[in-house]
Amino acid sequence: MIDAWARLDALAKPHRSLGRLEMLAARLATIQRRLDPVTRPRRIVLFAADHGVTAQGVSAWPSAVTGLMMATIIAGRATSSALARAHDCDLRLVDVGAVSPPKPPHPDFYVAAPVAPGTADLSLRPAMTAAQFETAWAVGADEARLAAAGHAVLIAGEMGIGNTTAAACLTALLADIPVDIAVGRGAGADDAMLAVKAGIVAAAVARARMEAEAQTAIAAVAGFEIVAMAGFFAAGAAAGATLLLDGYVATAAALIAERLAPGTARSMIAAHLSAEPGHAAALAALGLEPLLDWGMRLGEGTGALVALPMLDSAAALLSDVALLSDLGA
Amino acid sequence: MIDAWARLDALAKPHRSLGRLEMLAARLATIQRRLDPVTRPRRIVLFAADHGVTAQGVSAWPSAVTGLMMATIIAGRATSSALARAHDCDLRLVDVGAVSPPKPPHPDFYVAAPVAPGTADLSLRPAMTAAQFETAWAVGADEARLAAAGHAVLIAGEMGIGNTTAAACLTALLADIPVDIAVGRGAGADDAMLAVKAGIVAAAVARARMEAEAQTAIAAVAGFEIVAMAGFFAAGAAAGATLLLDGYVATAAALIAERLAPGTARSMIAAHLSAEPGHAAALAALGLEPLLDWGMRLGEGTGALVALPMLDSAAALLSDVALLSDLGA
Repeated sequence: MIDAWARLDALAKPHRSLGRLEMLAARLATIQRRLDPVTRPRRIVLFAADHGVTAQGVSAWPSAVTGLMMATIIAGRATSSALARAHDCDLRLVDVGAVSPPKPPHPDFYVAAPVAPGTADLSLRPAMTAAQFETAWAVGADEARLAAAGHAVLIAGEMGIGNTTAAACLTALLADIPVDIAVGRGAGADDAMLAVKAGIVAAAVARARMEAEAQTAIAAVAGFEIVAMAGFFAAGAAAGATLLLDGYVATAAALIAERLAPGTARSMIAAHLSAEPGHAAALAALGLEPLLDWGMRLGEGTGALVALPMLDSAAALLSDVALLSDLGA
Repeated sequence: MIDAWARLDALAKPHRSLGRLEMLAARLATIQRRLDPVTRPRRIVLFAADHGVTAQGVSAWPSAVTGLMMATIIAGRATSSALARAHDCDLRLVDVGAVSPPKPPHPDFYVAAPVAPGTADLSLRPAMTAAQFETAWAVGADEARLAAAGHAVLIAGEMGIGNTTAAACLTALLADIPVDIAVGRGAGADDAMLAVKAGIVAAAVARARMEAEAQTAIAAVAGFEIVAMAGFFAAGAAAGATLLLDGYVATAAALIAERLAPGTARSMIAAHLSAEPGHAAALAALGLEPLLDWGMRLGEGTGALVALPMLDSAAALLSDVALLSDLGA
């Protein structure tokens, strides 16, 4: 065990005068088990997939937008692309099951690993089979092992029209909160869509709760990109990486990871509290407190990218500031 | 006038899905009057001076610590040094009146421009003369003009044992709040010091309120580094720079600048809400909302440096993200 607070209290500054920044520094040092934590290089891996449940009208956008946004990421012009560049974070994009992924040629940061062209409609049947669950998990785990070999901090982001419906199911199921708190407007559902979404989530969660096995229940309501992120988190934590957690959908994946690979959340730092109403309970279930409360709800790892430089501040504090005992020496 | 919201609403992302980040982007674009705001290069100027009122026991630290921390900044090992390096912000240190400033040789980022070796004790007499006020203001204004010529974003930071006593006087005087809200523990005053500090602030503010001229009242309770920061803000805003505002002492300087050079606050972005109890009212008086609420109270511009990369995120959003109308084109 390292004693980050003893180090922080010995620095040349008034005692505890940096508030939350010191808490973040202590967390970072504890995760990395070193008093000079590192935050570079860092990588964001964006997992993209589609959701059969969009056929029910739960989203303001059609599934084709998943592929269009993947093309925008490839072109380096998505919000995630811009923020990753701004904060010196390398980026990969993984197709885990988009309905209309971008056609080749693909850049070297693109990985084609589709499980299927979108999940089944979770309002009618299980979203995926056990084999599909395991394939999606392995795609994410492989990405994490690859990334952890050369990166200190890992972020998982997602793109998938309809995925807040799956995230709401998973949060209700795994954080054990009421459906009406778990269901929000996602990327812009109107009142009618929101009512449809809530009904679908309530029914799907009720069915999933009948399953004896956690993994079967999860597979019934998840998405390929969400399961891939769960595998990414579990393998990333096992490999010793620091995981910076994005918003509602990423946190649903974190809940899966913590359920199936307990202890994964100990490697996590929660970047922000999303505008989605269920996010606070999901983070609380993982024992995490968000760094920012900025009402963000875009996904794509963007909240984590905005918070990433705060980790740089925390690391610099521990690594580069003189000790009080050095003053005047 | 530029219409930042029209641009933000046209980007390839769900409407208003980035919450406070979009508000920050709109503010940055409005200050800079361009839809592709810039945040580099950037500079922090640290103003250091001492306060005669420390003789009354208002601080947990002796005035000699001001000089020791200046030496630590020169050595690149203060918290401000570490954060400035982490976020690619160049740094200057200006002696406006320390009792025991570091001896030469001085590095090229050090400016010796002392007004006097510390202010007079504001509990006994006016802290500075009108001529001293004008000299300190000019030191800051010159630094701002020099910086604004080559930097998009400017931060003012301070080092000065006892300066939260002056800041409390200024906040009570200029934001018109009760003394018991304006007075906090600063860098670690205990209960006895806090009581002494509150009594001194109440008496000094009562005397200052008798002055007919705002500048005379301000000079009676200010510090050289605070007046220099006020001049820095006024001249920086006039030169078109974006000003990123730190905590309680910097905001006291901003209140001076706004009183003597109205409109200065329109060029400001408030980085954070300090742990000092009067800070919220001071920011509200300037019409500013803080980006972070992290309980920081170190000074040295450290809160602004932690928030600086958020401006990079906001600028990248406006400058580098595709329009919705470009998708699939």
